[in-house]
Amino acid sequence: MSDHEHSGDIKKFWEERGQLNELVLQKGGLGIKRFFSLDHQVYQEGALSVKTKELLGLVASLVLRCDDCIYYHLIRCHEEKVSDQELEESLAIGLIVGGSITIPHLRRAFKAWEDLRSGKDLKTD
Amino acid sequence: MSDHEHSGDIKKFWEERGQLNELVLQKGGLGIKRFFSLDHQVYQEGALSVKTKELLGLVASLVLRCDDCIYYHLIRCHEEKVSDQELEESLAIGLIVGGSITIPHLRRAFKAWEDLRSGKDLKTD
Amino acid sequence: MSDHEHSGDIKKFWEERGQLNELVLQKGGLGIKRFFSLDHQVYQEGALSVKTKELLGLVASLVLRCDDCIYYHLIRCHEEKVSDQELEESLAIGLIVGGSITIPHLRRAFKAWEDLRSGKDLKTD
Amino acid sequence: MSDHEHSGDIKKFWEERGQLNELVLQKGGLGIKRFFSLDHQVYQEGALSVKTKELLGLVASLVLRCDDCIYYHLIRCHEEKVSDQELEESLAIGLIVGGSITIPHLRRAFKAWEDLRSGKDLKTD
Amino acid sequence: MSDHEHSGDIKKFWEERGQLNELVLQKGGLGIKRFFSLDHQVYQEGALSVKTKELLGLVASLVLRCDDCIYYHLIRCHEEKVSDQELEESLAIGLIVGGSITIPHLRRAFKAWEDLRSGKDLKTD
Amino acid sequence: MSDHEHSGDIKKFWEERGQLNELVLQKGGLGIKRFFSLDHQVYQEGALSVKTKELLGLVASLVLRCDDCIYYHLIRCHEEKVSDQELEESLAIGLIVGGSITIPHLRRAFKAWEDLRSGKDLKTD
Repeated sequence: MSDHEHSGDIKKFWEERGQLNELVLQKGGLGIKRFFSLDHQVYQEGALSVKTKELLGLVASLVLRCDDCIYYHLIRCHEEKVSDQELEESLAIGLIVGGSITIPHLRRAFKAWEDLRSGKDLKTD
Repeated sequence: MSDHEHSGDIKKFWEERGQLNELVLQKGGLGIKRFFSLDHQVYQEGALSVKTKELLGLVASLVLRCDDCIYYHLIRCHEEKVSDQELEESLAIGLIVGGSITIPHLRRAFKAWEDLRSGKDLKTD
Repeated sequence: MSDHEHSGDIKKFWEERGQLNELVLQKGGLGIKRFFSLDHQVYQEGALSVKTKELLGLVASLVLRCDDCIYYHLIRCHEEKVSDQELEESLAIGLIVGGSITIPHLRRAFKAWEDLRSGKDLKTD
Repeated sequence: MSDHEHSGDIKKFWEERGQLNELVLQKGGLGIKRFFSLDHQVYQEGALSVKTKELLGLVASLVLRCDDCIYYHLIRCHEEKVSDQELEESLAIGLIVGGSITIPHLRRAFKAWEDLRSGKDLKTD
Repeated sequence: MSDHEHSGDIKKFWEERGQLNELVLQKGGLGIKRFFSLDHQVYQEGALSVKTKELLGLVASLVLRCDDCIYYHLIRCHEEKVSDQELEESLAIGLIVGGSITIPHLRRAFKAWEDLRSGKDLKTD
Repeated sequence: MSDHEHSGDIKKFWEERGQLNELVLQKGGLGIKRFFSLDHQVYQEGALSVKTKELLGLVASLVLRCDDCIYYHLIRCHEEKVSDQELEESLAIGLIVGGSITIPHLRRAFKAWEDLRSGKDLKTD
């Protein structure tokens, strides 16, 4: 498997997410729309910083083992200037809480983070 | 990502399911065969309609976050003439019970439902 | 263990739920309050009946293995005049989807249903 | 908390299990009865010994974090003469696979095993 | 249910945890001991503060729905001077990620936090 | 879908696993490295054979529904000369414990086992 094959994962996720979110909000009723709005609100600045909240979302996604959710929070963590070490410490906590069953997701998380850090711009690339 | 790439997901699932179920029933022992039979029986008409039972299977699959199981029950819901609104209300319950971690599956469920509703025949297409 | 010890489970749950929900709504912020409201709305009458929606909530709770959630939906199913056979068929689907790991919850669900059906009134008993 | 309070857990589980299984088989339909039968059959002697199968059931129960299921398989492991070291190695695998979230169950598993090994007879005590 | 019955939950957890951890470390082999040590290390000060790490552990515990793990991290959060609002925002994220199935744990978390904040000392009370 | 498309799954997993594990160990801190080491140690020969331990890892992976983890333990089971019947009995236990939600993973497990048994060498093919 070439690097090229790997590096597309997070970009592919981002495009698919945008397209399908449109579909969900078009087809979904009031309950689903309100949930999506709420899902946005809880990550806003408060007593905790946006950065801390994104790390909370990331670790929750890792222990629940959802690649798409992990990719989303990695993108947001990157935007919020999370450092390599802050990310590593967060993933380490997720690994210990969730056990070896999280390792396949941990592998893909480190790869996606490397892609994000290497300057691949999701929006313009 | 083109619509074409998306639309193949549920069709691909259906073909793979057929092929591999054959393999499982060929290699599996009596316990596995009996489980598969039981898995068929519990969705048969009873005090509850087949349609209601398929919705139960769908919501269980959404909160447990299994795409293949969701696709299977969406195909069955489509065959049982579940309406768009009945489907939406069922998925909304799954989303509230299971939380934002189910959203990637919710997205793919709405896309697969759209494909099924747009007349793409899984068996003859 | 006497019947007396068993029969208190669902009543105890109901009392604790009332007290602690008050606390959550008093201490929780806007996000939590809105989620609680949404959690109420998705079970309202729509294209699907309230009864069907409560069965969806029940099966989701069984496969996710949450006793308190199961008890809540059993109480609501009882209020919505779900029959013994409708309940049994719903629990059977949950058991097949979720496997033997759900059996301890299945046991307590049948016991709680028996208590509800035997006329023990949660609110005045 | 006295030892007395602790030691009753597995005995209490065993009594409740017996009573409620009767209720489930009385109220449950054919699907549930067949599942219970199947759940018995897969642990019978085959290419794998009964002992190995009980260890498989134990580790599955630990990673899925179900105390009642863990207690059941501990009782069966004890009957099948599983040694302390065999048990410890199995639980260690469950802990590594499932992570720190399994620790509360691991604690209660070691306590229940100690009770079983100290000669407390579940059936006649 | 009186306040007295409620308030004992977190204290009871703490005592049981101490007793049973001793048993685990006495009976457990090298693998289990090393895991327990690792579980301690990942929450130490690093690029992220101890407080942030405890919030990560708390939210992971909430979405995985483990009361004992939630209680443990609440006690640690209290020691690390987490404010009411920081706690509420963390729990809100856990609720949105994990859905209504986490609500019973959310209720008990708010109750335990109230007990901790009201000055009940776990070690000397 | 041709056999060719299927047969590549386990080989693709193996290559990706090797590449990404290198990345994880390069970017991961001491906690992650120690966990990986521990994850290796618990499967070593002890009171239980390596073969039995791999079956424990396999069933844990099936009930937790992680394809990559299942593939890894299938490869190891194949190396440890697990027989077809031993494998089938282990998977049957996983299916009964975990329920129909595990079936998509069961299908892929039987397919991967067939590939391994048909002599496709992961390392030199």
